[in-house]
This record gives sequence, structure tokens and C-alpha cells, in this order.
Amino acid sequence: MKKRSRFLQVPIEPFTVEPDLTADAILEKMERISFQGRSLGVAHRVWQKMLEDDVTIFMGMAGALSAGGMRMIVAYLIEHRFIDCLVSTGANLYHDLHETRGQHHYLGSAISNDTALAEDRIDRVYDTYASEEEFCDNDVWIGDFAASIEHRPYTSREFLNRLGGHLWSETKTNGILTAAYRAGVLIFCPAIADSSIGMGLSQGRHKSAGAGHIDIIGDIVESANMVIRRPRTATIVLGGGTPKNFINQASVQAEFFSEAVSGHKYALQIVTDVPHFGGASGSTLEEAQSWGKLATDAARVTVHADATIALPLLVTALAHSSGDLAKRRKRPNFDPSGREMLVEGAPISRDAFEEKGH
Amino acid sequence: MKKRSRFLQVPIEPFTVEPDLTADAILEKMERISFQGRSLGVAHRVWQKMLEDDVTIFMGMAGALSAGGMRMIVAYLIEHRFIDCLVSTGANLYHDLHETRGQHHYLGSAISNDTALAEDRIDRVYDTYASEEEFCDNDVWIGDFAASIEHRPYTSREFLNRLGGHLWSETKTNGILTAAYRAGVLIFCPAIADSSIGMGLSQGRHKSAGAGHIDIIGDIVESANMVIRRPRTATIVLGGGTPKNFINQASVQAEFFSEAVSGHKYALQIVTDVPHFGGASGSTLEEAQSWGKLATDAARVTVHADATIALPLLVTALAHSSGDLAKRRKRPNFDPSGREMLVEGAPISRDAFEEKGH
Amino acid sequence: MKKRSRFLQVPIEPFTVEPDLTADAILEKMERISFQGRSLGVAHRVWQKMLEDDVTIFMGMAGALSAGGMRMIVAYLIEHRFIDCLVSTGANLYHDLHETRGQHHYLGSAISNDTALAEDRIDRVYDTYASEEEFCDNDVWIGDFAASIEHRPYTSREFLNRLGGHLWSETKTNGILTAAYRAGVLIFCPAIADSSIGMGLSQGRHKSAGAGHIDIIGDIVESANMVIRRPRTATIVLGGGTPKNFINQASVQAEFFSEAVSGHKYALQIVTDVPHFGGASGSTLEEAQSWGKLATDAARVTVHADATIALPLLVTALAHSSGDLAKRRKRPNFDPSGREMLVEGAPISRDAFEEKGH
Amino acid sequence: MKKRSRFLQVPIEPFTVEPDLTADAILEKMERISFQGRSLGVAHRVWQKMLEDDVTIFMGMAGALSAGGMRMIVAYLIEHRFIDCLVSTGANLYHDLHETRGQHHYLGSAISNDTALAEDRIDRVYDTYASEEEFCDNDVWIGDFAASIEHRPYTSREFLNRLGGHLWSETKTNGILTAAYRAGVLIFCPAIADSSIGMGLSQGRHKSAGAGHIDIIGDIVESANMVIRRPRTATIVLGGGTPKNFINQASVQAEFFSEAVSGHKYALQIVTDVPHFGGASGSTLEEAQSWGKLATDAARVTVHADATIALPLLVTALAHSSGDLAKRRKRPNFDPSGREMLVEGAPISRDAFEEKGH
Repeated sequence: MKKRSRFLQVPIEPFTVEPDLTADAILEKMERISFQGRSLGVAHRVWQKMLEDDVTIFMGMAGALSAGGMRMIVAYLIEHRFIDCLVSTGANLYHDLHETRGQHHYLGSAISNDTALAEDRIDRVYDTYASEEEFCDNDVWIGDFAASIEHRPYTSREFLNRLGGHLWSETKTNGILTAAYRAGVLIFCPAIADSSIGMGLSQGRHKSAGAGHIDIIGDIVESANMVIRRPRTATIVLGGGTPKNFINQASVQAEFFSEAVSGHKYALQIVTDVPHFGGASGSTLEEAQSWGKLATDAARVTVHADATIALPLLVTALAHSSGDLAKRRKRPNFDPSGREMLVEGAPISRDAFEEKGH
Repeated sequence: MKKRSRFLQVPIEPFTVEPDLTADAILEKMERISFQGRSLGVAHRVWQKMLEDDVTIFMGMAGALSAGGMRMIVAYLIEHRFIDCLVSTGANLYHDLHETRGQHHYLGSAISNDTALAEDRIDRVYDTYASEEEFCDNDVWIGDFAASIEHRPYTSREFLNRLGGHLWSETKTNGILTAAYRAGVLIFCPAIADSSIGMGLSQGRHKSAGAGHIDIIGDIVESANMVIRRPRTATIVLGGGTPKNFINQASVQAEFFSEAVSGHKYALQIVTDVPHFGGASGSTLEEAQSWGKLATDAARVTVHADATIALPLLVTALAHSSGDLAKRRKRPNFDPSGREMLVEGAPISRDAFEEKGH
Repeated sequence: MKKRSRFLQVPIEPFTVEPDLTADAILEKMERISFQGRSLGVAHRVWQKMLEDDVTIFMGMAGALSAGGMRMIVAYLIEHRFIDCLVSTGANLYHDLHETRGQHHYLGSAISNDTALAEDRIDRVYDTYASEEEFCDNDVWIGDFAASIEHRPYTSREFLNRLGGHLWSETKTNGILTAAYRAGVLIFCPAIADSSIGMGLSQGRHKSAGAGHIDIIGDIVESANMVIRRPRTATIVLGGGTPKNFINQASVQAEFFSEAVSGHKYALQIVTDVPHFGGASGSTLEEAQSWGKLATDAARVTVHADATIALPLLVTALAHSSGDLAKRRKRPNFDPSGREMLVEGAPISRDAFEEKGH
Repeated sequence: MKKRSRFLQVPIEPFTVEPDLTADAILEKMERISFQGRSLGVAHRVWQKMLEDDVTIFMGMAGALSAGGMRMIVAYLIEHRFIDCLVSTGANLYHDLHETRGQHHYLGSAISNDTALAEDRIDRVYDTYASEEEFCDNDVWIGDFAASIEHRPYTSREFLNRLGGHLWSETKTNGILTAAYRAGVLIFCPAIADSSIGMGLSQGRHKSAGAGHIDIIGDIVESANMVIRRPRTATIVLGGGTPKNFINQASVQAEFFSEAVSGHKYALQIVTDVPHFGGASGSTLEEAQSWGKLATDAARVTVHADATIALPLLVTALAHSSGDLAKRRKRPNFDPSGREMLVEGAPISRDAFEEKGH
């Protein structure tokens, strides 16, 4: 009889319809189909492996995910420590703050009369609307806070932890910033100058000379030192952007100063951008291996999908399949509240890299 | 107090994580978020409305969805009459036949050595493999069948019904072709010449002079006459391609001959292509309204997502939320087995349009 | 001194601005940059190699390229024999006929009131408008022609050659169909049933019993026999769709019957679709090698770009750089006018494959 | 006779092939076709209008455009003042510096063995390679410079001007940073912390306590004050990202403090991202109008294309058609060299907004 090709090992199992399936059962079946459905099934598995291993889990978040209704999913991931460190665009943190302060984004339409919206001072994000007036009120609120604290440079990590604390004390309401504040989860925002949080900070400085200084170079040192301290890391990226690269950069920068660092051990990205135009957002995880951003044997998966579809399904599934896993995993212990953050109780510098074994 | 803008009516409700949710509960929550997540939630609702109304539901299917593990979902939709008429590419029907005949597609990798695959005669579809030898065997099987039946032109609808019957008698196995055969659901394949089914037919002709004639112009007449008989219609499109336009064309052609026809009443499309390059696959449902393909007041929704992610979630949800609805809906009664198909027991022509009220 | 990595051989040369450059000079400089710009530069080179070699050049054309203003470029390629055989969607041939008959497509807007357009019976294709009334007039014109010719099955190749002849005799105007008629270039349209040409044919049958029969299975046999006769082939694909696969299928089908056939020797595709959703339009040329559609050593290049940008630049460049090459190349000699087409003066069958050496 | 629809005014003119066309002649013909080809033609026209008007022209630059071979085009635009202010990602400035220092990016392949590349310490950007060792050398060079200058916070604008000056003094070589230094064109880099320039700065701080402070909130104030001083502005965006929003934010922030500001008057974007996933990179220019980022009557055009295709064609065309226009246009006069930059000789603050008429 003819020998079978080594390439034909595991048959696809066509997805069969079962009305009562939970989200994790759906994803487990999707591991055995093709294309992006398979990738999403594999993403569930890869995330589980991160939780089983002793790794620091970074999550990057770009695109208008908070405005789009994803912020309580991210807050859930923070609260239940499915992740340890969030790197975000400023907009996502701002839109989170907007809702935590009791305001809303609204169902709208992608086919809009934008001149009419402008007249009503409604800001549109694809099919979603918000009030510009309420946004201005947030800017003032952020500016007042920035003006109220000691006038010195803050890393975005320190500033956002304090902002989360202030927000919690005012609202006692759950969200990304407040959940991170309460759970001791770190937030970095390398492009804070390109957001309404940055605008709020600039207004704080306008009000009070010397206020609103963010030391984003300190964030680079700090994030690299975190990796030097705990060299086993994982990265989950939603949408690419500055967070995707910042998480990788922490690993690359750490490698310069410590022999123990060799790229993230796990990588999961949910992106809509594509590789062939050369941008970082759409770049493949294989390309990241050439740079040493990822270990050459890293478990990795890319899902080409809108996070507003993939994330509700994926995190509902994880909550069902892996709640216990998240509870008993070895979580890194951070204290982000001070000028110098603490990792397992020990401070790490924002001014100098720790050198190990080079 | 300040008047609220008319644009700010219904707040987004951020998706909250609940571990035990069923698929339909997930989609109901997704209706209140943004972007493509919202669209997928709305798609669930629009499909339910189709089932509640008295409409003929067309489904189009393009892209390698059968190879990709979607064929048993489509078979389920046929069997439980969530749809009434399938328009497909040839490849999807061929890959369905491949598996119904007991063969498989296999888990592979998108990063492959294609020269090595070619040496082993493995055909790749992105991250999925199949045996070329088995494909050749299917071609012969189709060719033999084509050579065995009366040598005259068949519409693709008639030929595919017979092919489904032959497949059922040989395999007693469920799949798209066999489910459609058994449920009296129509299948059209306007581009059958661009597929391995077409290749099988050409081999049938090679074997037996005069075999393998498909009357695809007859399919145009027949599909338009169907709409003239039952002018209330709905369209569900997976992936665009020839099926998307063929379903719309049936409506446009029917309008030329009957005043009662005025475009599909419901439209749902799950596509990955985009509008701005001008192709039909990515074209918007609003554009379709300019042509009269869609009624200007049609309920409609576009989901920009890979069907291998969207469909498992959407159909699992529908099965849970709308199984009863599908059972008790007013289904059109087709008999696709003869040279002339029957609609509610009455034959419709493949050679001349029925004229009503023009 | 440190050894240089074998991967660092040829430096990128940043594109420098020179105001007087012709299109081919621009593309020659683009070969030395990155990403899709590089690909377009390479596309120019690959097409030149096709012209230098003794190959039959197929071109596939999908997407609304004729409506979009590309038809006179394709007519130029036909007239000057930069290509030998066109495989097209029906829509592109229909929109070509529309303009050759003296009608127009119009500058419009992608942000339109489609209800208002529908009231005026204006059909929209993204940012382009056309008159539905004029379209109906074309349908009638095609139907009348179909009713006027002998009532028997025609391959799309034969029918389109006759249609081109009729159009030429009526209009004496250049376009795709008329240029192909005059130059003896073949046109296939495997999905003719999914287009307004198909609709016209169906109306011809409605008028005159027995008219409007297209033998698209005959097209499969004929196209494969062409490759068997002249096994060295090249493929240029604009936009994917049925033409992309039909051209590949001709090669695969031919291989079953002739040892001399081993996949296209050159492949160039300009596509906007992507590989990761599994559809054929976006599939890579490497994937095509696993199937034997392409030779494993084929020169190949994919350009991810809208053809309405890439084609004007690429063909203007080719016209400047390679006009002589096109004139003196070894062109296959076709006569597509009869029931059986002639290759180098010898008829080829539409009913049986030619067998060579198996 | 039938009245013509108001929607059918200007016929498309199919693009005709003429071998000797210059780039601007190609683009002028493309204005009369459809889809993205038309958009690129219109982009040429809109840029010309910017040059004819008295506006400050911002350009945003994201994606790996410098590595991809676009840096000398941007340097040309700076040198000949087709633009007045560049907002860039850090990577583009870093890759520019890399080449200005005499190093290269190399032709590579998108289908690579990334493990082998990692072993050779080659970093891949899609189909392009670079030496990691050379990158490390740049980091050190930047760090040394940062350590050598006065230890105080610099806006990215001030730091990059000084970096450009240092680079010029060392290399006397043209590039983006050096051209901007010499032409008095501003460069902002709001996400400098997410780049190798940021990494270099962090290494500068590691070497010399107190070095490497970037005041990115000062950049916000400064850029808004620029718009307050010269409220007529235009925006050209390549690829989206942080630069796209930063340019818009300057306008929005300026409006809070000055009645004379009302959004950019012209907007041109060349993007590959799409609107329907909700991210800022792909967002439409119409959406930007709802926010007041763009004037509601702004001339605007979006080109969906890879900049490595669109930019060589567009800027070659502009150089031919509009060189004189650029020379005699009313250019704003900036001096970016000091702690406070000068606009028309007068300093603007980085610490407080200028208030006009609110």
C-alpha cells in the first residue's frame, strides 16, 4: 500500500453545531478547523499555557477598544490577573476614565452626517458617538489633578497609578485604571503625548507652572529592568500600535544588560493590520524572532480579527475554562505606587539599567 | 439645563465577562458594543427577523469555507431550513463532496515548504493540506457520474441535486450536497466551470461524447423566476464572490419582468474584502440599494470578519435562540429534482421569464 | 575583521526625487526599495522576462476594472500583444461593451445617498455612477445578438469572439472586446452566468427559444488543450476571482494529460485580498506551487495594490521600456473565430483532451 | 427627450497608454478614472492647492517608511519646503539616522528563516534586513550625544533639531534629520519613548545621571501654540499612527484657546488601514470633521495604498508640476533651534497656551 505523506497527520474536524456550547467549548472545537477560526482556538490554548507557566504577562492595547465596549473585559483581565502589566494608548485609558466618571459612549452610525455631528459637538469613532463637552470636562479634571500633585517628572507608570487612585477615590467604580490601581497591575503609556490624557496634562501645566511632566524615557528603563528581574515573559497584543513595540522593546533592551533574557516565551496577537506594507502593527511574530523580541521557540499565534469580535468570545471562554488557573498561578508581585516601583518588594530604578552577567 | 443632542440616545454597554454565557447570550450583549462586534450581534438579530418573516432565504458561499471546516455548519443550516437556497462556488461543493466521500482535509501550516509539498503531491490552502491523489479520485468519480446520466444540458441546480442524490446513495453521509438533496434545498453554482467539479464534468465529456453539459444561462432564468414567484427574499452572503452577485442578479432580473419585485428585504454579509477598491465582494449593502438589488428600506448588516470565526459563533447562537423559529417558519416548498424545478408544486421554466404586471 | 552575514548583500537604495523621470525609470528605481513599491518594480521586470521568453501569456481580470477606467489599458495590452489570452469576469466585458457602444461611466462619490440614486436609476460602483437605463439597453442589444445567431452551444471563447466582431462592425471603436476580436486574442469568461452578459443571454433565450446556450465545460477542455499544445505559459492576474483560478486550472488539467506541462513559468499578480482568510483571490503564489499551478522554479511576484494605481504606472512603463520587445516576441498564433479554435493553424477540441505521453 | 440625472455629469475617461508620460501627466489622467487611482490623482491636486494657499503644512509619517526607502523623498519635501513640520514615529527618524551615518538596510525576503536571521543578528522588516550590531552602534551614538548635552528636559522638537545638527556636523550628509536641521523645518516625535531613539536616550541616562529627559507634554503645548499663531493649516498623513492624531490634536487643542482656529483646511492621507475596525489610523477624514480636527469644508482625499508605491509617483509628479509653486509659496518661518522655538521671529511657549478671543 502507498505510504502516506508525513504532511497529512491530523484531519480537520468540521465544526458541528451544538446549541448549548459555552464559549470555551466553541474555541476548543475551533482549534480543529482552519484559517482564523483555528487561530482563535489556538489563542485560547496559548493563553492557558501562559497562565500555567511562571511568566510575567504583558498586554498591549491599541485601537479604540475602550470606546468600543472592551474596557470591562480588560478590567476583568486585570482584576483576575490574567495579565500583569498593561501597555496602552492614551485614548483607551482616557475613554475608560470617561466612562468610569459616569459618562458614556453612544450607539451611532458609521454612515453619518459629520457636519451635523460637528454642529452638535458630537465626536464620532466609526459607529460610536460621544459628547465633546463631556470630553472637555475630562480634560479639565485631568488637568486639575496634574496641577494638584507634586510638580516633578513622573513616569507614565507612576502617573497612571496615581490617576487610577484618584479616580477610584472619587468614583468607587470599576474600570481599567481603577482595577489596575487596586490590583497592583502596572500600566505604561509610552505615547501619552498623543492623547487626551496628554492634552489634560498640558492644561494642567498651563494652569500651574511646572506641572504635567511625564518622564517617558524613565518608562523605558523601568520596563527593561522589570524584564531583567523576571526574564520569563509573555506578550498579548490587541491591535498593534505603540504598545506592541514597547513590550518588545522592553525585552530587547533588557537583553543588552542581562544574559538571562532571551525574548518573550509566549506571544499572542489579535490584529487587523497585515504584514506586507511593512508596518510594525501588522508584522508577523516570526519577524519578531529575527530581532530577538520573541524567543525562537516561543509558542505564538496571530489572529487576524477585530478585537471587538475576538475578545468577548476569547475572554468569556478563558473565564470559564481557566478561572482557577488564574487564581493559583504564580503572579509577579508589583507595587506601582511609588516614584520607584517595587518588584517582589524590591525597588527598580527608572534611571539606570541593572546589569547581569555581561 | 442643556438640551441633549439627538445623536446621543442609547449608551454603549461595555461587554462584561460572564463565564457561563451561551453563544446567543454573547451575541445579544455584542449588539450594545461597537465596531464589528456590534455588527455580529446585529447579524444575529437580522437573521432572526428573516426567520420570523415570510421570505425565501438565499445564502451565498465563497472562499474556501468547506475546506476550512464550515461545511457541517452549512449542512445544519440546510437541514434545519435556516436557509432555502444555497449559491456556492464550485470549490466549496467539491471540498464538501471530498469529505462526504470519507476523505479529509488536514491541519497544516501557512508557513510551509511548498516545494516539499509539491513533491508529496499535497495541495495547500493557507494552513490546510489535502491529498492531490484523493482529489484526482474525486474528479474521476464526478466524471463517471456525469458520463452515466442522460447526455443533455443540465442547469447547475438540476445537476447538483442529482449529484447530491448519487452521493447520498453511495455514502449515506451528511454534508452540504447530501443535506440539500434530502431537504429539498436548492443549490446553484454559476461559476461551476471554475472549479474541480467543472474539471470532473470535462473529464466526463472526455470519456463519453456529449456528456457534461451545464446550462448556466438556464440557472439565470430559473433563479429569476423563483423570485418572481416568491418576491419576498433575503440574502445572507459569506465572503462575496460570484454567489453574492448571482443572488442580487436574480432580484434585478426578476424586477424587469414583475412589478411585485423590489429588491431583497433583508441582507446580511460576512466579508473580509473592503469597498474602496471597487470590487463586488467588498461592496457595501448601501451601494446595492442604488442598483435595486436591495430594497431601500431593507434591514441590513455587514460584518467584516473571517467566516471561520463569525460563523461558528453565529450559528451556534442561532441554533440556541431560534431553533423553534426555524421549525415553524413559512418555508418555501421546492422540488429541485426535475428538469424543471417545482415551487409550491408548480414548475418554473429555465427557458423563459414569467411576466407579471409590466 | 568581522565577517559579514550572507543575508546582507544588496543595500536598499532610497528612492531619490527626479522630476523628469518616465514611468519605467520610476519602476526601475523602485526595484531597489522595499515592501510593495519593490514588488511593483519587480513586476515590471518579470513581465519583461515573459516577453523575452517563448510563453503564452494569460491575463486574468476581476474587480470593476473596466468601469474603473482600466479598459483602454487592457485593450492596449491586447492590441500590442503584451498578452495572448484574457480571462475575465463578465462585468468587465460588459462595462467595456457599454463604453464601446458610446455610453459612459461617470465620476461620482463613495459617500452617496443611495436612495436618491435608486430613484434616478443610477447604479453605483464605489465612487462611480452609471445609468441603469443604458445598462438595460445593453442587455437588450446582447439578447438580440444572441437570438440572431445559430442556436447551439457556444464556448464563452467563441461567443465573446463573435460578440466582439458584432460590436466592431457596429461601432468601429476600440475596446477590450473589439481589440481582442481584431488581434486574434482569446477571451474566456468562465463565470459568464454571473454577469449582465449572462443576463443579456438569458433575455435572448426568452425572446427566441433555444438561444443563449454557453458551453462553459467546453471552455475548460479548450483552455487545457491550449496548454497541452503550448506548455510554456505565464500568468498575470489582476484582482483574483474566477479568472485567477481558471488560468491555474488550465495548467493543472493539462498536466493530467501531458507530461510536458509543469505549471506556469512566470506569475505576476496585483491583488488587494490577503492570504490569511483562505480564499483563492488572496492566496500566495507559493501556495500555488504546492498544487502544481506554478512551476516550483517560476519567476513570480505579488503586488498588494489597487490595480487602478498599479496598472497605469506599470503599463505606461512597459510601453516605454518594452514596446519593441512586444513587437518581436514569439507570439502564439490563435484563431478564435470558429466553433473549434485554431492554435498555429491547427484546431483544438472542446470535447476531448489531447493526450501526450501519459 | 428624457431629462438626464443630475448625478451623471462628468464621464470617466479611461486611462490611455502613452509611453512618454511624466509622473504628473500620469496623475492628471488618473483624476478622471475611479477608485484609488482617482484618489491618487486628486491627492496631487490637493497638495498643489496647499502650496498655492498660505497654510502651514504638517506631514505625519508612520510605518517603516525610512527603512523602506522613502527617506530621501521626505528629505526632498523638507528641503524644497513642500512641507513645514514633520511629525514622525521614532523608528523612521532612527532608520534615517542609520543611513545618514553611512549604514544600510538591505534587500531581503519576506519568506525568511527567522531563526537563521536571529543567529546572524539580522533584524527583518518584512522583506528588508538590517544589522543589529549597527543598530546597537547607533544606540550608543545617540546615548553619547544625549549624555553630552545639558541635562534638562527637551521637547522632542528641540532634541531632534539638535540631534539633526550633530548628525550634520559629523556626516555632512543629507537625510530627514539633517535636511530638517538645515531647512528650519520642525520635527515632532510624540511617541519617542517607543523607538530606538528612546532606547538611545535611556542609555544616555544610564551613562550620565540626569540625561535623556524628553518633555513630550511641552510638545503638545508648542504644537498647539503654533496653530494659534498661524491658524491656517494643512495635514498630509502617511500611514496613520501617532503622527496622524498628534497633528489633529494640535488643531483641536488650539481651538480651545483661540477662536480663529477651526480645523485643518486641507487633508491628504495615504493609508492602508480601514475605517471599520474603529482605529484612528484607518479613520476617515469625514469622521475627523465631526471632531473639528478638519474644517467642515476642508478639501480632503484619502488614498488607500502602500506609501512605497504612492509616494515615489506622487512626489516625482509634484517635483515636476510644482517645483516653482513650492519655491514661491508663503512659507512659515520657524527657528526650531532654541529651548523656545521661534515662529516668524517670535518665541512660543512650551509651558502655557496663548489665549486669543475666548
